[in-house]
Amino acid sequence: MKLPEKVEVIEVCPRDGFQNIHDLIPFDAKVRIIKKLAEAGFKRIEAVSFVSPKAIPQMADAKDVMLAVKETLKEHGVSSVALVPNARGVETALECGVDELTYVISVSEKHNLANVRRTPAESLEQFKALIGEYGDKMRFRLALATALGCPFGEEIRTERVAEMARFGLELGCQEIMIADTVGMSNPARTHALMSALVKEFGADTFVMHLHDTRGLALANTLACMELGVHKFESAAGGLGGCPFAPGAAGNVATEDVLNMMSEMGIETGIDNDILHEAIELIEADVHAPIVSHMAHLYHKAPCR
Amino acid sequence: MKLPEKVEVIEVCPRDGFQNIHDLIPFDAKVRIIKKLAEAGFKRIEAVSFVSPKAIPQMADAKDVMLAVKETLKEHGVSSVALVPNARGVETALECGVDELTYVISVSEKHNLANVRRTPAESLEQFKALIGEYGDKMRFRLALATALGCPFGEEIRTERVAEMARFGLELGCQEIMIADTVGMSNPARTHALMSALVKEFGADTFVMHLHDTRGLALANTLACMELGVHKFESAAGGLGGCPFAPGAAGNVATEDVLNMMSEMGIETGIDNDILHEAIELIEADVHAPIVSHMAHLYHKAPCR
Repeated sequence: MKLPEKVEVIEVCPRDGFQNIHDLIPFDAKVRIIKKLAEAGFKRIEAVSFVSPKAIPQMADAKDVMLAVKETLKEHGVSSVALVPNARGVETALECGVDELTYVISVSEKHNLANVRRTPAESLEQFKALIGEYGDKMRFRLALATALGCPFGEEIRTERVAEMARFGLELGCQEIMIADTVGMSNPARTHALMSALVKEFGADTFVMHLHDTRGLALANTLACMELGVHKFESAAGGLGGCPFAPGAAGNVATEDVLNMMSEMGIETGIDNDILHEAIELIEADVHAPIVSHMAHLYHKAPCR
Repeated sequence: MKLPEKVEVIEVCPRDGFQNIHDLIPFDAKVRIIKKLAEAGFKRIEAVSFVSPKAIPQMADAKDVMLAVKETLKEHGVSSVALVPNARGVETALECGVDELTYVISVSEKHNLANVRRTPAESLEQFKALIGEYGDKMRFRLALATALGCPFGEEIRTERVAEMARFGLELGCQEIMIADTVGMSNPARTHALMSALVKEFGADTFVMHLHDTRGLALANTLACMELGVHKFESAAGGLGGCPFAPGAAGNVATEDVLNMMSEMGIETGIDNDILHEAIELIEADVHAPIVSHMAHLYHKAPCR
């Protein structure tokens, strides 16, 4: 079994984990959690999204959060990542000195319409315009949502995912994020898509963003690593489940990914104890269940 | 990704799932659950263990349970499997007309001593004596516990696992069960052990018994299937966690295994809806948390 010697684990709990949580998380708690995650050794943390506070009230303080954690991230050599849906978001990111931006387009037409009221083609044009305007001032990565399954049952063609990836790369993106947005994929499907993409664009191009809804995120991670893919997003505590499906797992939990990697001798550079301190901070201040195997073993997190 | 076209899923909830549960499960509930599982389409169900009721009070009614479900299992073409630790257990199994017996030996010396107060070598001799006495009347399979990790930190050598497997096969066993008793393995380790064993004895020889303590059971399953291994034990509802580690997962949940297989187009012959009816019966009468992804999605099982 050929596997990478090291992988990058990108922490997205403060963005994807927090954004769906109904109860507002105190500003100080967000800052405390992000700073603790920075201490754990991640090279990148997706800390906020700059979106309309009407759409996502939890992110209303995103700019202040980013400004408050900036120095600590820099001290620990952590690049800050933010999600932006439009030029206004990019402007705010520039004001805060964010290092890298994520722009999301769904491969699924239905999902993109539901999510941002645009067709994927319209979103690609908007992304092109954003890169045209800000590409010299900011690093962008393109995230392809529903690339591994559409919750509305729309067929996702590998060739379409490849086309959209190519579009982003030709605009100058250095990375394409491939998301299993609702955790629908399985190792065979993941392997099929990623082997086509890796063949065309190389393993280094891709960041995987896997959800654990059906418990398959680690098996999907393995399928990707067997192809040489070595960048994975995850959320401390497994946060990020849909608020309308209580008990359903969210993002694959960072601590579970980390355990798999360290057990297989794959380097991540993350300090497990500090990560679990961050999870304790999440438990203390975030009204969301901790959904992971390792948190239960490590510090008997209250069960979901 | 080369995977088997079909796999056998062996249901062990009534044995491995129930045996650790403190509160006695009513006799009628056990019978109802096993009959429902038989209806779901499993070819084999490990229904009881014939052990001392002092050691495992939950199994005190094992003989009556087996006699009560026997006809239903036969009607549905299900082979009954029971775990036995000694000649007395074999005698009881013969009285009930059980089809196949599981005899467990830990590869780890420390674990075997803790479990049955014998060295593995002594257990192998006992097993040989049992086969000598009953081998013409009963089908035996040898289960190698801790083959993928010892909770006491003892090193498990591949060559020792192979030796013990060879011992069982030379005695006439048609199958060797490889157990990750406390869910310590990872896909690289699983792949390394199983590729050596499959190379020597063939994929058809092995049944995997994986626990999901650290969330790696499905990734381990995938690693085995990539080697052609196609027989897997699992427990409906993910029961079988250690009673002293609340919240820790137990046996990999049958419904999660089944979902992975069916999503990948791998045939199991199991009816998913009937399986979930069985899980509802378990929820109703068994005082243990349902620990699986699919049960939460399928019928909003109360969370652990």
